[in-house]
Amino acid sequence: MTRPTFVRARRPEHKQQRREAILDAARRLALESGVRNVTLGGVAADVGLAKSNVVRYFGTREEIYLELLTEAGHDWHDAVVGRLRQTTRPGDVVTVLAETLADRPLFCDLLGQLSQHLEHNVSLTAARAFKETALQLAGGLGQAIAQAHPGLTDDEAVELTHLAAWLAGCLYAASRPSPAVAELYQQEPRLAALCPPFLPTLHRALAALAAGLPTLRDRSA
Amino acid sequence: MTRPTFVRARRPEHKQQRREAILDAARRLALESGVRNVTLGGVAADVGLAKSNVVRYFGTREEIYLELLTEAGHDWHDAVVGRLRQTTRPGDVVTVLAETLADRPLFCDLLGQLSQHLEHNVSLTAARAFKETALQLAGGLGQAIAQAHPGLTDDEAVELTHLAAWLAGCLYAASRPSPAVAELYQQEPRLAALCPPFLPTLHRALAALAAGLPTLRDRSA
Repeated sequence: MTRPTFVRARRPEHKQQRREAILDAARRLALESGVRNVTLGGVAADVGLAKSNVVRYFGTREEIYLELLTEAGHDWHDAVVGRLRQTTRPGDVVTVLAETLADRPLFCDLLGQLSQHLEHNVSLTAARAFKETALQLAGGLGQAIAQAHPGLTDDEAVELTHLAAWLAGCLYAASRPSPAVAELYQQEPRLAALCPPFLPTLHRALAALAAGLPTLRDRSA
Repeated sequence: MTRPTFVRARRPEHKQQRREAILDAARRLALESGVRNVTLGGVAADVGLAKSNVVRYFGTREEIYLELLTEAGHDWHDAVVGRLRQTTRPGDVVTVLAETLADRPLFCDLLGQLSQHLEHNVSLTAARAFKETALQLAGGLGQAIAQAHPGLTDDEAVELTHLAAWLAGCLYAASRPSPAVAELYQQEPRLAALCPPFLPTLHRALAALAAGLPTLRDRSA
């Protein structure tokens, strides 16, 4: 199997092309086999570079995926804000959040990997860039959600956004059983009740949270 | 450094002792460095056995931790049921769930590892034993919660139990920043708003869910 052989990129546009090629490969491999199964060596081989060359662009495997998570976060933000502009019923907020997450399996996979893996083995610079973006996107989403759902304050809307992201990450993993567990569910359908279907489970949890968060205000007053 | 050297266990009580020694080592190492950082080789070295000897008792590293999760699940179930017996106010249910989880860091760590790691690389037999226990414990917790909180049906109480376990798993990881992220939070305290404190975040989410789940009944009727 022949792979394109790269020479060292010297011009800025070539460096940018190479960065994009690395991100494309990491994205494609993660969609094929799940983020957790992709190694830096696998990305390097896919893009036709030596590992030592890939780390000139991204210091570690985790930094590549933190960059893809940032990109996917912007994409999710824009999709939610876009759909909420056309929304008139407050209840649609939950549907928009749940459906836009269900439409983005790579984003959900990355969210599930974030605290345990992607934030480890990264530089302070990469961590800072990621957290700045996360704070800004959560704030933007909170504003858009509070505007579309007058029953929620800005703070509650930001809280709902964070909970949506955490739940999407863990439900993504929980809704995709391992081979052994999938075989078990086939043999014992009554145990399959433990496997949460992603979209309905997330939708119901977010609907409950959106209804429940405002009821907590008086207690803390 | 000398380690106890074991000869092959032949009598049932010796086999049981050896199983317990392996579980003890895996538990202690996970509490020290986090479940994700413990290897089968590390457990074997700690207990003074060869890896090939450990796998006579547990087929894989993941089966050891699935066994510890089962044990921790029983312990959580008993603690919740015990505390709920002395409870008179429905709102206490959420406090009991959140506090008993916060008191059990190893359980929360294991819950966060479950779908992505512990259910992979296990035998069908180990997966079945674990899922049977999970179904039974969730049912028992659901009953105890619904009895203490008359505003929740049995099904809603089981749902709350599952959501508590998923949230505990992801909040445990999210509330413990990596070294790079911890350094960043120290440099930029405003970014630390992204780090959820475990107990208050879990308590508030569960309180919102307990208040919100019953409001969804009419919509689906």
